[in-house]
Amino acid sequence: MFENKNYEDIKSIINDDERVLYADNINEEYSHDELGGTHSTPDIVVKAMSTEEVSKIAKYAYDNEISLTVRGSGTGLVGACVPVNKGIVLDMSGMKNILELDEENLTVTVEPGVLLMELSKFVEEHDLFYPPDPGEKSATIGGNISTNAGGMRAVKYGVTRDYVRALEVVLANGEIVNFGGKIVKNSSGYALKDLMVGSEGTLGIITKATLKLLPLPKKTISLLIPFPDISKAISTVPKIIKAKAIPTAIEFMQREVIEDAESYLGSKFPDSSSEAYLLLKFDGNSTDEIESYYDDTAKICLENGAIDIFISDTEERDETIWKARGAFLEAIKNSTSDMDEVDVVVPRNRVNEMVEFSHALQKEVGARIKCFGHAGDGNLHIYVLKDDIADKDWEGVLKGAMDKMYEKAHSLKGEVSGEHGIGYAKKGYLEKSLDKESIEIMRGIKKAFDPKNILNPGKIF
Amino acid sequence: MFENKNYEDIKSIINDDERVLYADNINEEYSHDELGGTHSTPDIVVKAMSTEEVSKIAKYAYDNEISLTVRGSGTGLVGACVPVNKGIVLDMSGMKNILELDEENLTVTVEPGVLLMELSKFVEEHDLFYPPDPGEKSATIGGNISTNAGGMRAVKYGVTRDYVRALEVVLANGEIVNFGGKIVKNSSGYALKDLMVGSEGTLGIITKATLKLLPLPKKTISLLIPFPDISKAISTVPKIIKAKAIPTAIEFMQREVIEDAESYLGSKFPDSSSEAYLLLKFDGNSTDEIESYYDDTAKICLENGAIDIFISDTEERDETIWKARGAFLEAIKNSTSDMDEVDVVVPRNRVNEMVEFSHALQKEVGARIKCFGHAGDGNLHIYVLKDDIADKDWEGVLKGAMDKMYEKAHSLKGEVSGEHGIGYAKKGYLEKSLDKESIEIMRGIKKAFDPKNILNPGKIF
Repeated sequence: MFENKNYEDIKSIINDDERVLYADNINEEYSHDELGGTHSTPDIVVKAMSTEEVSKIAKYAYDNEISLTVRGSGTGLVGACVPVNKGIVLDMSGMKNILELDEENLTVTVEPGVLLMELSKFVEEHDLFYPPDPGEKSATIGGNISTNAGGMRAVKYGVTRDYVRALEVVLANGEIVNFGGKIVKNSSGYALKDLMVGSEGTLGIITKATLKLLPLPKKTISLLIPFPDISKAISTVPKIIKAKAIPTAIEFMQREVIEDAESYLGSKFPDSSSEAYLLLKFDGNSTDEIESYYDDTAKICLENGAIDIFISDTEERDETIWKARGAFLEAIKNSTSDMDEVDVVVPRNRVNEMVEFSHALQKEVGARIKCFGHAGDGNLHIYVLKDDIADKDWEGVLKGAMDKMYEKAHSLKGEVSGEHGIGYAKKGYLEKSLDKESIEIMRGIKKAFDPKNILNPGKIF
Repeated sequence: MFENKNYEDIKSIINDDERVLYADNINEEYSHDELGGTHSTPDIVVKAMSTEEVSKIAKYAYDNEISLTVRGSGTGLVGACVPVNKGIVLDMSGMKNILELDEENLTVTVEPGVLLMELSKFVEEHDLFYPPDPGEKSATIGGNISTNAGGMRAVKYGVTRDYVRALEVVLANGEIVNFGGKIVKNSSGYALKDLMVGSEGTLGIITKATLKLLPLPKKTISLLIPFPDISKAISTVPKIIKAKAIPTAIEFMQREVIEDAESYLGSKFPDSSSEAYLLLKFDGNSTDEIESYYDDTAKICLENGAIDIFISDTEERDETIWKARGAFLEAIKNSTSDMDEVDVVVPRNRVNEMVEFSHALQKEVGARIKCFGHAGDGNLHIYVLKDDIADKDWEGVLKGAMDKMYEKAHSLKGEVSGEHGIGYAKKGYLEKSLDKESIEIMRGIKKAFDPKNILNPGKIF
């Protein structure tokens, strides 16, 4: 039990009353994340400002066996930052300094509370490029690392893990350790840095990250390609890959989701007259270079039923398209009373099967199901909408739909989560999807890092 | 103690006497690796041909608490495949089938005994590209994954870890598990696949690997750039990086090592009149595209003291240069009576300090020290040569040199191994380089995978 004494102790550690929220002073937002499916109010919230504070709080939590849940911007979708065992929530959003840009090693070192949009802006001003590009730009980089966030450029550039060079981590007992370095290669013992990436706050608390950067591509061109139906659109993707073009991104979208975005943003998408679209991006150092890539791709699309090819080579037009794409989640959320999501990832030549399956499921479960996603990397975002389904029926309908979709993804040799993580909401599905030996090993790893089960307990497995 | 009964049991599991070597039938090569600094003869050698056999042998070893050490081609340099606790050596070199090329997902699935040179040849015939490019082409892919091998293309393309999509692994108790999949993104629990990469046979036995491929670049151009001295050559590298060129490889080499290679291979290098060289490679889809990259680089080199720029744009000339580069290790080994190596990795703007330090060390310790390496990614290979140092003095001289070099690398924020691993020979240096918490966590991870400490005991820590 968290007692008043604990509150007093923590207040004296932090020594700044405005950064310690207790009881009625805790804002409601700390009890849930963006999607809000998981609810629990912490006993106390600490807004950390330094590694030393994090270390002291962790040591205190460890010594007193109090649960400690780390939170960034709270933009997660699976309840990972919700303190299901109550205890302390450590809000890292105040640690938001960009500490160093090292142009000789092409790295940037940041505190975990830096927002993704701030990071991109900063490095791009220096003609550099941080490739991971999740739709949610107000997520923190600490959160992105903790979920191994993917985003839209994964086809060409990979995911967050590929850009984390080093981490400063506060362990459960308050010790401060460093994993990795400003080095390109490493074969020095087990990959603790890689293990931290995607561990959703259960193994340690990230207090500093050194990220790999690339030179900023000089030119970007997007292609918006209408198709008569979604199946034709998606089945073209493996052919594009097979033809060895290297788009930065390949997204698929349907008219109904575009219309949601139009009405949510109050602005028109360049075209919404067709049933389905592929949206591709190419980058490179010159228009000529990029053209050589996308010419072949355009040809393949036309041969496979594309109605037209819209080329977007101005920044303004590009922004309209990608802004709409970035708003899909919010737009769908806005179009219904409640919803939950599936973030499965399947081999990219199985995407069509997964999409067709979820469309067909609508009739079976009696709920609208919408989806969009990363056709190029096999990561789908599928939403089950509550609309006017009665509260008493909703849980059953949702569970029915979810069970079937995860089962289907598993049968396609997919995984439960491509980029949003497991958190609290998807634990049951991870357990079904992995063999029991893997879960046992994960439990052993958790124990090696956090023997008292202090850090974000009740998550992942 | 391994007894005759164990031999009989294992023979009956494998049921093919030619693939079970016992006592006097064990070839001498199974007692050491390429560098030969660590020696120990196993009790028995089993040449595995299938996952099922590996699983049965592991289960037998587990039930009977017998050490089990996996071996590929034996091209390692730190004794990782040497059975220091004796027991069973599992020779995986017979599992060498390429199982599937999936052009829609851009993956190839192989058994662990496939040689790196066979893998490259196979995928390149299909116009595809497996980027990791260690000098030792007769290493197995299983060995490459187990050390997270780096190689020469890491500057642009990263290391082995970045290309491992999925692994089939036999655990210590014989259970067969799968980590990862043919998927581009994954955020489904802890990164067990990434943990396996670089774990040097201590966590599980890799029996199948699915690797990510890229489209084969259509054109490659190398630049051989002579400098008046090594310091000028290496200090140019961070400037190349800062100027945002993206070479595939940046190697540095000195005349003395080139001369060793010339006499070892019996063929002339295109130029060996200068003291030091940078060797760069660029790739892309057209000569024009590549030229736009390397023009700037050539200019930077000339501004920083380069004597000339030799452009190699024919396959034949390219092969001469890179073949010599690939033979450096063998050539140095051939030039002396015995040697040991350091495989440190430092931030790439600290390479010069490390090289200068090891040159200066020659006088101090009274031994020749030669080096070459990956200037672009900070990974150095430094060799201490025995020459005619008396046997009784050698160990002391070597230890003195090694201690100082690892200490220096640590002070430059480097790590013990960039790509060769820790194995048996570098354990002490890893222990000095990491904080004790990290080592403790690694021990906990080992226990989670291998509670009886059966798999390759006595390695890494």
